[in-house]
Amino acid sequence: MASFITFEGPEGSGKSTQIRLLAEALERSGSRVTSTREPGGTPIGNAVRAILLDRRHTEMSPRAETLLFNAARAQIVDQVIRPALQAGQIVLCDRYADSTLAYQGYGHGQSLDDLRRLGAYATGGLTPDLTIYLDIDVREGLRRKQAGAADEWNRMEEKTLAYHQAVRQGYLALAAAEAQRWLVIDAGRSIDAIHGEIMQRVQTTLLCLPPRPAPDHQP
Amino acid sequence: MASFITFEGPEGSGKSTQIRLLAEALERSGSRVTSTREPGGTPIGNAVRAILLDRRHTEMSPRAETLLFNAARAQIVDQVIRPALQAGQIVLCDRYADSTLAYQGYGHGQSLDDLRRLGAYATGGLTPDLTIYLDIDVREGLRRKQAGAADEWNRMEEKTLAYHQAVRQGYLALAAAEAQRWLVIDAGRSIDAIHGEIMQRVQTTLLCLPPRPAPDHQP
Repeated sequence: MASFITFEGPEGSGKSTQIRLLAEALERSGSRVTSTREPGGTPIGNAVRAILLDRRHTEMSPRAETLLFNAARAQIVDQVIRPALQAGQIVLCDRYADSTLAYQGYGHGQSLDDLRRLGAYATGGLTPDLTIYLDIDVREGLRRKQAGAADEWNRMEEKTLAYHQAVRQGYLALAAAEAQRWLVIDAGRSIDAIHGEIMQRVQTTLLCLPPRPAPDHQP
Repeated sequence: MASFITFEGPEGSGKSTQIRLLAEALERSGSRVTSTREPGGTPIGNAVRAILLDRRHTEMSPRAETLLFNAARAQIVDQVIRPALQAGQIVLCDRYADSTLAYQGYGHGQSLDDLRRLGAYATGGLTPDLTIYLDIDVREGLRRKQAGAADEWNRMEEKTLAYHQAVRQGYLALAAAEAQRWLVIDAGRSIDAIHGEIMQRVQTTLLCLPPRPAPDHQP
């Protein structure tokens, strides 16, 4: 059964590991799975990602940043996610529209209403069936990320600790406001324990999903 | 007196030539002038422009395209246009938000309401004092552009003739709906005749402009 599952969480919360484990488990049980990530996931998205993560771009306007994330999003929705869902696959996406609400909205203080309208435009209204939020103490997440791969430290991660804390509070507020779609997970535990909790919820979600209506035609 | 003047028009309508002539004339008369262009005009904008004009990007989603244009726009507004206006300069911009309405709206059939909201977000509400539309028969414009620099022929210009005709009709509709802001010029005439008409209107606009209020703070 086609299903769209997104992963959210601060830097270093372990999203990539959990996406890989979930994809492998779903494939072993016979599902076809597409894993992708934002920004990126397409040649155009990767070109946009390179602009966003370039450390030289310190002068980037917050609105330009938001529009670039949404451009990569529109491309991945049309080129990867919708086609995979239409082919009956399970799509796992590392970050999606909620990232913009958390980082540019709660983090940068942009209007949530503006950002929701932008997101609805970029996605053509496609919302996830399930969003898994890996919650972790901000200091611990940043420490993990730095220790794991110092060369991955980039412009986005150099923002202040207070900013990352506002982002975390934003995620928790989003999850509380739409509890049915979100699974909030304590990412301070072992990889296996987290994977087990994700598997349980994903299996329930897949069992209980209504048939996905054919997506609207996108121009 | 600070003033924001944009140029619009189909490919090959002679915008760059007229912007250069106008900038030179205004500078001779003692004004400080900033000339820029969209998409581009900033390092980030130029990186976005490279993605937009890359002929290999045939799979670009129309919504991704629109968001990329608006990202470059947000950047040029914050980094170039607002600072120049605040410093009392005359800003001449080759293309601005009306291009998106004409090309992505009238040309591609995207919702004008959606595009206006996007444009208002990207520009932070900054609208031109005067928009000069160089109107030219679509076939003639494309012919000029091809003859002038065959290697500049790019992905954007390979769209069909019907598309360019819809864009032209769009520009004429926009100009008719907001006649006070727009000057529609028959660009089939000599360079000097066009320049003369532009100078006359620009001088009137500069004389009659109310003092520009201090722009709102942009996040």
